[in-house]
Amino acid sequence: MLIVMRHGATDAEIQRVVAVIEELGYKASRMPGAQRTAVGLVGNDGRVDASRLEALPGVQEIIHVSKPYKQVSREWKSENTVVRLPGGVAVGGTDVVAIAGPCSVESERQILEAARQVREAGAVILRGGAWKPRTSPYAFQGLGRPGLQLLAKAREETGLLICTEAMDPEGVGYVAEVADIIQIGARNMQNFSLLKAAGRVKKPVLLKRGMSATIEELLLSAEYLLAEGNHDVILCERGIRGFDAATRNVFDLTAIPVVHKLSHLPIIADPSHGTGLRDKVIPMARAAVAAGADGIIVEVHPHPDQALSDGAQSLFPDQFTQLMREVRVIAEVIGRRVAEPASVGA
Amino acid sequence: MLIVMRHGATDAEIQRVVAVIEELGYKASRMPGAQRTAVGLVGNDGRVDASRLEALPGVQEIIHVSKPYKQVSREWKSENTVVRLPGGVAVGGTDVVAIAGPCSVESERQILEAARQVREAGAVILRGGAWKPRTSPYAFQGLGRPGLQLLAKAREETGLLICTEAMDPEGVGYVAEVADIIQIGARNMQNFSLLKAAGRVKKPVLLKRGMSATIEELLLSAEYLLAEGNHDVILCERGIRGFDAATRNVFDLTAIPVVHKLSHLPIIADPSHGTGLRDKVIPMARAAVAAGADGIIVEVHPHPDQALSDGAQSLFPDQFTQLMREVRVIAEVIGRRVAEPASVGA
Amino acid sequence: MLIVMRHGATDAEIQRVVAVIEELGYKASRMPGAQRTAVGLVGNDGRVDASRLEALPGVQEIIHVSKPYKQVSREWKSENTVVRLPGGVAVGGTDVVAIAGPCSVESERQILEAARQVREAGAVILRGGAWKPRTSPYAFQGLGRPGLQLLAKAREETGLLICTEAMDPEGVGYVAEVADIIQIGARNMQNFSLLKAAGRVKKPVLLKRGMSATIEELLLSAEYLLAEGNHDVILCERGIRGFDAATRNVFDLTAIPVVHKLSHLPIIADPSHGTGLRDKVIPMARAAVAAGADGIIVEVHPHPDQALSDGAQSLFPDQFTQLMREVRVIAEVIGRRVAEPASVGA
Amino acid sequence: MLIVMRHGATDAEIQRVVAVIEELGYKASRMPGAQRTAVGLVGNDGRVDASRLEALPGVQEIIHVSKPYKQVSREWKSENTVVRLPGGVAVGGTDVVAIAGPCSVESERQILEAARQVREAGAVILRGGAWKPRTSPYAFQGLGRPGLQLLAKAREETGLLICTEAMDPEGVGYVAEVADIIQIGARNMQNFSLLKAAGRVKKPVLLKRGMSATIEELLLSAEYLLAEGNHDVILCERGIRGFDAATRNVFDLTAIPVVHKLSHLPIIADPSHGTGLRDKVIPMARAAVAAGADGIIVEVHPHPDQALSDGAQSLFPDQFTQLMREVRVIAEVIGRRVAEPASVGA
Repeated sequence: MLIVMRHGATDAEIQRVVAVIEELGYKASRMPGAQRTAVGLVGNDGRVDASRLEALPGVQEIIHVSKPYKQVSREWKSENTVVRLPGGVAVGGTDVVAIAGPCSVESERQILEAARQVREAGAVILRGGAWKPRTSPYAFQGLGRPGLQLLAKAREETGLLICTEAMDPEGVGYVAEVADIIQIGARNMQNFSLLKAAGRVKKPVLLKRGMSATIEELLLSAEYLLAEGNHDVILCERGIRGFDAATRNVFDLTAIPVVHKLSHLPIIADPSHGTGLRDKVIPMARAAVAAGADGIIVEVHPHPDQALSDGAQSLFPDQFTQLMREVRVIAEVIGRRVAEPASVGA
Repeated sequence: MLIVMRHGATDAEIQRVVAVIEELGYKASRMPGAQRTAVGLVGNDGRVDASRLEALPGVQEIIHVSKPYKQVSREWKSENTVVRLPGGVAVGGTDVVAIAGPCSVESERQILEAARQVREAGAVILRGGAWKPRTSPYAFQGLGRPGLQLLAKAREETGLLICTEAMDPEGVGYVAEVADIIQIGARNMQNFSLLKAAGRVKKPVLLKRGMSATIEELLLSAEYLLAEGNHDVILCERGIRGFDAATRNVFDLTAIPVVHKLSHLPIIADPSHGTGLRDKVIPMARAAVAAGADGIIVEVHPHPDQALSDGAQSLFPDQFTQLMREVRVIAEVIGRRVAEPASVGA
Repeated sequence: MLIVMRHGATDAEIQRVVAVIEELGYKASRMPGAQRTAVGLVGNDGRVDASRLEALPGVQEIIHVSKPYKQVSREWKSENTVVRLPGGVAVGGTDVVAIAGPCSVESERQILEAARQVREAGAVILRGGAWKPRTSPYAFQGLGRPGLQLLAKAREETGLLICTEAMDPEGVGYVAEVADIIQIGARNMQNFSLLKAAGRVKKPVLLKRGMSATIEELLLSAEYLLAEGNHDVILCERGIRGFDAATRNVFDLTAIPVVHKLSHLPIIADPSHGTGLRDKVIPMARAAVAAGADGIIVEVHPHPDQALSDGAQSLFPDQFTQLMREVRVIAEVIGRRVAEPASVGA
Repeated sequence: MLIVMRHGATDAEIQRVVAVIEELGYKASRMPGAQRTAVGLVGNDGRVDASRLEALPGVQEIIHVSKPYKQVSREWKSENTVVRLPGGVAVGGTDVVAIAGPCSVESERQILEAARQVREAGAVILRGGAWKPRTSPYAFQGLGRPGLQLLAKAREETGLLICTEAMDPEGVGYVAEVADIIQIGARNMQNFSLLKAAGRVKKPVLLKRGMSATIEELLLSAEYLLAEGNHDVILCERGIRGFDAATRNVFDLTAIPVVHKLSHLPIIADPSHGTGLRDKVIPMARAAVAAGADGIIVEVHPHPDQALSDGAQSLFPDQFTQLMREVRVIAEVIGRRVAEPASVGA
C-alpha cells in the first residue's frame, strides 16, 4: 500500500502517517519524489483497512499495490482449481462443461422433457430454478421445495447433475441436500449472509458476477466462500450493466482471461443472461468458449413461447444441439474438449 | 404494452400474437403502421410477463407503456406518503430530516459521543451499523446484537431515534425489536428474501438504491415491501456505479425529483456513500436538499481517523454542525424546514 | 412513434397532440388504454423530431417504434454490403479480414518491418497512424504527412492495403489520397464535420464505435456517411467505457450480432483497444471471430517495448502468427474463411 | 510513477525496468515489499509514456502517482482562474453567472425574444447554437453563419454577452469573430484538432465534459487549450452516460467540488442537458449552485413547444425567472452572489 502525500504536505503530517502505519503493525518506508512524498506500507497481507490512513491530514490518496483477496489468488495457489463433481465431471481442467435447462422448474413434464433434450445435445449438468429472484413481486417466484424434488427426479432419469439457486441462508440447506451445485445469483453476489452460509456446506458453489461488480469484488465474494472452508467455487460471467438498451446486459467476456490470470478458480459464461436475446446466445456461447471459458450455462426450454420466465432468451432444443456441435470444434482449437454426458447412472 | 412486429411479419404471425394476448386474458388491438404493424395489449395492470410474447415468431420488440410497479406509484396514491416516527418526527412532509452518526457502532463510548454530537448539531435520527456488509471477509463486520443494545442506550440518553441495518431475514427480527427504522443496504436492494421479511414487520424501512439499480428497479424493490403490507418505506439515493475513479460513486441527485414524480414515497440522500470523500460531503448534502430531498443521512464520527470503517468519508462533528447551518437556509428557499431534535425523551 | 399521455390527460391535451402530429405532416391514431391513452404517429420515416411533442402538456413520454436511421438499416437494404478493396480484398462477404500493424508509424524501418511481419502471418491490410488522437497534449502526436508516405512505401513493398486515421476535415483529403481505408476513431465518432467530409470522398471508411456510443448512435454516425454518398462503410467495435479498471475498456462483442441484425454494413472488432492488455488480445480476437466479426484489427509491433504508443497492448509478431493460426480454424466452424494475402502487387 | 513487479519477478527483470527508466532520463528507486518489489520512477513531470514500461517482462502494473496534466492543475497555479469578459462579467470569482437561451438560433424574432426574456430574468450571457451537432443527419443542423449575425444583433439590443458553439477548426474562426465565449460541445471534447484551433484564438472557451469522459480526461482536454496559449477556459458538467433510461444523462454534480480541488479553472453546470427533462431543470440548477458551481447554463425558449431542437428540456421564460429567484438565495448561503445584467451597452 502506498500513501501518497499532497504536494506541500508538512513533515509532521508525514510523521503522523508513519506513526499510524506502525500502530497498525506494519513497517513504513518513505519515498521522497520530485513533486511529492509517498509512504510505503510494507508487509501488507491484504487485510489493511485504508480508511484510517485516507483520513489523515496531508494524505492525497491511497494506492493499493497488493490485492485485497488472498486464498482465491494465483499467488496463493498457482495451479488451477478443478471442481470435481459426481460421475467424473470436472470443472476447471481440460474439459469444457455445458450446463443447460430451463430458467425455472415449472412442472414434472417440462423439466423431464428439458433434461432429456439437453442431455441428448451434450449437456452434463441440468439447470433450473426452484426459487427465482424476480425484479417484480408479481412475477412467478418458482415452485420452491417441490421444484427441488422434480430436479432430483430428472437427475435420476437422465444421469445429469443438478445446479440450482439458493436465495437465502435457509434455502442453502434445502438446496445442498438435493443439488450437485448450489448457485448464488448475480443479485446476491454481495449477500454476505448467504455467502457465509454457502461457505459452510460441502457442496460446490456457482457464484455469478453481480451486475455492477468489478472482478475484484467478484473475487472477494468468492473469498468469503473459501474463508469459510468451501474451496469448490466456480465463477460465472453473466453480463454487466451497460448504457445501451440494445441488449439486456453487456456480456463481458474479457473477464474470462482476466479471472484466469488473477485466480486459480474456474470461470464459466452465461450467454443467455449475458445478452438476453435468443438469437445472440449461439454466437456469444461460441465466443465464450473461444475466449477460454471453462464451461457455458445456457437456458434451453422445450417450448420457449410457453415459458413462465425468460422465454425470450431460451433456446429451442435444436438450437442448443447446433450450438454444442460448434463449440466442440472451437474447444479443440484451443486444446480443450467438451465434456460428454456419461450413460445414465454412471 | 405494445408488441412491435418485424417489417414483413406475416399475417399468421400477427394472429398468433393476438391469440397469445387473449390467452393471457387481455384485449389485443392491432395498429398497422407505415413500416410495420404493432399490436397493443389493452388492460395491462403491470403484471404481464412479456417473455412469452417476446419469444413469438415475427415479434421485433416489446414496448412497455405501463409501469411494472403499482402500489408505490403516484397513480395508485397521489398524495405523498409521510412516514411517522416516534416523537413526532415525520419523513416525507414539509420537514427535511437529518440522520447522522458513525458507519459502525464500535463501542459504548464512541456511539454515545457521536449521538450527543450529532444531536447537538441538529440530527433527529442516529445511524450506526451493528452488522456491516463488507466487500472483504477480512474487514470489520460489526458488533452484532451487542451493537443494537448500544444503539438503544444512545437513544435513551439523547432522545434520538435509531436507524440501523439488517442483512438477512433473521437479522430483521433483531433489528425490528430495537430500531425505529430498519435499513436495507444497497447490496441487498434485490435480496428478495430480505425484502419479504422486512415487508412483514411493523417498522419503517429505509431502502437504499442498489449500485446499478435503475429507478424502476428501486421502486419494484419497494413494491415488495408494500405488497407484504409494510407501507412505511423511505427510499435513499446513495450513489451509483460509474466509470470515473475520481469519486467512489456517482451521486445521482436527479433521482430525487424523478422519484418524487413517479412515486408517493419519500426519498432521502446519502452524500457520504454517494461521494466517498469527506470534503465532498458538505457541498453534495447542500445540493441534495436543494434538489428536494426529504432528508439526508450523513456519516459523522467523533474521531474519523480512528474509525474502524469508512473513516475517510466521515465528517468531523464540527463539519456536520456547519453543514446543518447551511442546509437550514436552503430548505427554506424551497418552502421546507429542517426538523429539529426534541428535548430528550420527548 | 407512440405518444403516451399521462394518466388523467384531458381530451383537449390529446387533441393538441393530434393537431401537432398533423401539422408535422403525419397521421395520428388514438389508442385508448386501461390506464391511459396513447397516440400513434403513423407514417414516420425516421425523421420526426420528437422534442416538439415531448414538450406538450399531458404528454408522459415518447416511444420510438421506428428506428431513426434509414439507409444503414437492413430494412432499407436486406443483403449484406460487401466493401470491395483493391487486389480482390472484400469486407462483409464470406472472408474474415485481418488488419494489423503498429499503433503509430514511427520510422521507415519500423513500418516496413511491421508490414513484412504481419503479411507473413496472414494480414491483408496494414494499420498504422500518421496522426494520433492522444488524450494528453504532451504525448507523441504522430509523424503527420510524412507518415502517410511511409505507409505508401510499405504498401508498395508488401502489397498490403493501407488503413489509417484522419482526424479533421483537412486530414480527410490527405488520407484519401494515399490510404485504401480512411479510419475515423472512437473519439471522433460524433465529430459530424469530419463525418460529412469523409462522406464526400470515394474511399471506404472504417468507423469506430465511440467509447460511450449506443449501437443506434453508431449506426446514425454511419448514416451521415451514407447520406453524403459514401456507401463503403465498415463499422468497428473497439470497447466501451465500463466501471472496472481491470481492463481499459469493456469489449462488447455482442455488438457484432446486434449490428448484423439491424444493418447490412460489415463490422469488425479491435481486441487491442477493446481490452488494452496484450495477453487478452489473443483470446478476445478468437472470441470476436467466433461471434461472427467480419474482420479483426490488431496492433502488432516489431518491438513492443520500444513502441512510442500503445506498447503494452501490441502483440509480438510471433503472437500474431499464432493468433492467425487459431482464427483460421474458428472461421471455418461458422462457414467462413480468413482472407489470405495475395502475392505482392496483385 | 510506480512500476509494480509480479510476485516472483526475477532480478534481471527488475534490472531491466531500472535500465529503461534511466534511459528515459529519470531516476529509479527500488522498493522491496513483503509480496513483491516495486520500482519508483522519480522526477516524473507528467509526460512519461508508461506503455514502454508496461510492456516489460515481469511488470504487473503501472501506478500513476503524478497527474498527467500540468498547467490546469492547482499545483501549477494555486489561485482560482477568473475568466474576465466584456462588461465586467467574470467567471470563477465570487459571482455565479447565468447563461441562458434557446438550444438553436432559429430566427431573428425567436432569438431577440429569448434574449430579452432571459436578460429580464437575470442572465448575463446568451446561449444559442448557430451550428448544432445532431446525432441524426436528418435533424435540424443550425442556421450556420447567418445564425451568428442574429446573435450579434441580440447582443447589440440587450447587452448580453454571446456564447455559441464551434464544431470544427474552420468554425472556430467564424465564432471567434462574433462570440464572447466559444463553446466546445461534449461530443467534441476529444476532437483534438478543434481543441488546438480553439487554443490559438484569443477568446474564452467553454469546454463541456464528454459523455463518458473522466474528470482527468476533461482536464487533459483543457490542457490542450492552455498548452496552445489560451488560459481563459471555463469547464462545464453536462451529464454523463448512465444505465438508467429514466433520465437522458446522469448529472454528475460531484464533478464540481472535484474539479475545484484539482484545478484552478472555473466550472459551471448545464442542468438542461444534464437531465434532459424540463421539470428536472429547476431542482438540479438549484443543486448545482448549492454544490458550488461557478455558473449555470440553461436552455430557455420563448415557445418550447415550437422549438426546432431540445424543446422538451427548454424552460418556459417564467420558469427561468422563478429559478433565478431561488438560486440567488442559495448563492448567498455559500458566500457568493448571482451576477446581475448591466444596463444595455454597459
